[in-house]
Amino acid sequence: VLVLGGGFAGLEACRALRGAPCEILLVDRQNHHLFQPLLYQVATAGLSGSDIAQPLRSMLAGQSNVQVHRATAVSIDLASRTVAFRDEPDPIEYDHLVLGLGLVTNWFGHASWSRYAIGLKTLHDAYRIRDRMLDAAEAAENLVDDPDERRRLLTTVVVGSGPTGVEMAGAMAELGRREIETEYRIVRAHQLRIVLVSADDRPLSSFHPELSRRTLDDLRSLGVDVRLSSPVRDLREGEVVLDGETIAAHTIVWAAGVRAPSIVHGLGVPLDRVGRILVEPDCSLPGHPNVFAVGDLAAMRVDPGDPGGPGDPASRFVPGVAQGAMQSGAHVGRTIRDRLRGGAVSVRPFRYQDRGSMATIGRAKAVAEIGGRRFGGLVAWLLWLFIHLAFLIDLRSKASVLLKWIAAYVFYRPSNRIVAAAPTDDETADGGHLRSTPSRGRVV
Amino acid sequence: VLVLGGGFAGLEACRALRGAPCEILLVDRQNHHLFQPLLYQVATAGLSGSDIAQPLRSMLAGQSNVQVHRATAVSIDLASRTVAFRDEPDPIEYDHLVLGLGLVTNWFGHASWSRYAIGLKTLHDAYRIRDRMLDAAEAAENLVDDPDERRRLLTTVVVGSGPTGVEMAGAMAELGRREIETEYRIVRAHQLRIVLVSADDRPLSSFHPELSRRTLDDLRSLGVDVRLSSPVRDLREGEVVLDGETIAAHTIVWAAGVRAPSIVHGLGVPLDRVGRILVEPDCSLPGHPNVFAVGDLAAMRVDPGDPGGPGDPASRFVPGVAQGAMQSGAHVGRTIRDRLRGGAVSVRPFRYQDRGSMATIGRAKAVAEIGGRRFGGLVAWLLWLFIHLAFLIDLRSKASVLLKWIAAYVFYRPSNRIVAAAPTDDETADGGHLRSTPSRGRVV
Repeated sequence: VLVLGGGFAGLEACRALRGAPCEILLVDRQNHHLFQPLLYQVATAGLSGSDIAQPLRSMLAGQSNVQVHRATAVSIDLASRTVAFRDEPDPIEYDHLVLGLGLVTNWFGHASWSRYAIGLKTLHDAYRIRDRMLDAAEAAENLVDDPDERRRLLTTVVVGSGPTGVEMAGAMAELGRREIETEYRIVRAHQLRIVLVSADDRPLSSFHPELSRRTLDDLRSLGVDVRLSSPVRDLREGEVVLDGETIAAHTIVWAAGVRAPSIVHGLGVPLDRVGRILVEPDCSLPGHPNVFAVGDLAAMRVDPGDPGGPGDPASRFVPGVAQGAMQSGAHVGRTIRDRLRGGAVSVRPFRYQDRGSMATIGRAKAVAEIGGRRFGGLVAWLLWLFIHLAFLIDLRSKASVLLKWIAAYVFYRPSNRIVAAAPTDDETADGGHLRSTPSRGRVV
Repeated sequence: VLVLGGGFAGLEACRALRGAPCEILLVDRQNHHLFQPLLYQVATAGLSGSDIAQPLRSMLAGQSNVQVHRATAVSIDLASRTVAFRDEPDPIEYDHLVLGLGLVTNWFGHASWSRYAIGLKTLHDAYRIRDRMLDAAEAAENLVDDPDERRRLLTTVVVGSGPTGVEMAGAMAELGRREIETEYRIVRAHQLRIVLVSADDRPLSSFHPELSRRTLDDLRSLGVDVRLSSPVRDLREGEVVLDGETIAAHTIVWAAGVRAPSIVHGLGVPLDRVGRILVEPDCSLPGHPNVFAVGDLAAMRVDPGDPGGPGDPASRFVPGVAQGAMQSGAHVGRTIRDRLRGGAVSVRPFRYQDRGSMATIGRAKAVAEIGGRRFGGLVAWLLWLFIHLAFLIDLRSKASVLLKWIAAYVFYRPSNRIVAAAPTDDETADGGHLRSTPSRGRVV
């Protein structure tokens, strides 16, 4: 059994195969599993990378039928049942294949935009955002006589008003202001400007309109400048072009959309608009009962009996959240285990259990929808806190995260604002390095 | 008062000037103070960068006469009393100048060696070492049919047997073995090879010979291959050349020496063999009573009445440790404060109080010399633990560090083994980035 991707879906697929009579190879291009829902806290200096990540090798150490391999898949050949990896001469053969590769940042065809904005899908992205904002604040503090340039340095635009964009903007406004107020001498807190730009007419459009209103109020009370129904027309170096306005901003965060990685286009199976694989009710690929797609790479219907066709797609497909990934991964793992044990190929449709959704905006500010009930404010925020801590159990970093959250709540003190600058020429004797290094610095 | 460098010395100088009638500008090219004595634990994945670093701005937030500025000094003009900084048009003028720039890795004139080995002076260095070792272990696990190459990948050479080299080698052997044993399937723990190479005839040569013997026993019991009286003749890509032997090693750590940064050569004051400034008894520069050097950048005599001349320099100069830096920084801060208050220029010689020295080799293995008494084993290790935790108080990360140390002691589990790989082309749409990125990955 070959599992591509060690996210929530791939990991759960491996775990469901514990004790099954098979050899599992889990391949990921990173050495770690990442707790994606908290990635924005790394980008805003609240948590460190190791708080929300854990080596895959360590998470699966107790399961003897799994091997972990670090490599990047470059092509999948369904006919010969092989996957080829970068820098490896021989492709790997499989009997069962589980695709849990996840999605990547979608620049909607504007290839150059990735030069001017930073997505938020990997730890690398999160460090770049943190680095850029901290560098900008230092530069603004050192700059005394150019108010326009200082304004540009202190402006951050977040594009996209889904949970990622809302959580980013809220955390930036709250933590950034307090940090500037207590630690900076020249820059003043009110000069920090966070703009949330969205093509939608309300934030968190997948939530109930009442919670969108609450979110908008909460964001505005934190001082976030929210621009709704404002599609981005162009991105340039340090500039976001909207209809009738151009915002000068040193930091631009792109949380406006995701798409499937290019590798899926070689599969020859039907894909949706953003490249997600339109899977059968049991998550297998059409015509390939031994190949499965799980997590947000798969377009899975909430009702497996849904025949397809027109209608509101948002409400008919499983959302790309951790719950959907974990449930589909576990489902496929169990399906493979049963086949290996029983011999008979039974098609068991996957049924998604919606456990609710939530987003946090700031200190004691959050929104949640659970089982048709809606929550806001402190109640939603405490719910959010306990649910996220409970799910971090796998990462063995609950205590560290809890301490940092308490510190942030009580002191408003983000704890991970360290920039590990690359060495100067003087330190390397001749400027030579074992490997290329970032040009200015890196936040850790 | 201009203070260059936010290490132990510069920070203590600022603190001693609390409430003094002056404006202090603290300039560092990093945004953080680094607890250098624990840097090897970041390199061996035991701690994260934010555990041992704290933003300077945050540490000095409560002191209203200090401003923190992030910049890199490029030249100091003692005649015009100005310091010039990279990328800044105007030099900064000072009345009093405190030089606490610290030392950098000494490649002893072999400029190319910095391409083949990694020093251990900055967080950036520590991440590179960690990254390189973790990548090598992954590669060795994936490689099945080339025993020589696997041996090379799993070999790490640490050059230098001072505290840094000894602590690195011990931690690598202990944590690395245990990690491989529990989490790897193909690589076996005994295949991990740590070689400690030194030109000295005993490790920790500044300690009592009895403790050197104990250290040697401890290192060997951890499986470290210790090569004494073995000066390095050459470094090449993946190779360390000794007299009569060449060791093939993927990772080479250089802990063999330090030197002053090049900027001191423009000062026109007497320097010692490695560029440290030969200061007056009050730590001022000869002929410049308003300019001071502190910390390990200054060659300060233990006995301020020592007239100089021949003799064993090691026992006559203050060692380059945190205690010496903190004491000299505080002394100079008080000297400046008294001058500003009293007006009269009094020369107060700096007297170093030796509070002892210690090094840790592994779990319950350490050596310590305090007030003429010598300790080894568990007692020394507990001493080391409490003293280091006590000094971390400034960094507000004691709880996090203590938890990680307990986890490492009980489970032998290094907690920071996350490699934040740079994005693939697919993720960046066209391979363009806001800034250059590392070629393969980065451990965080």
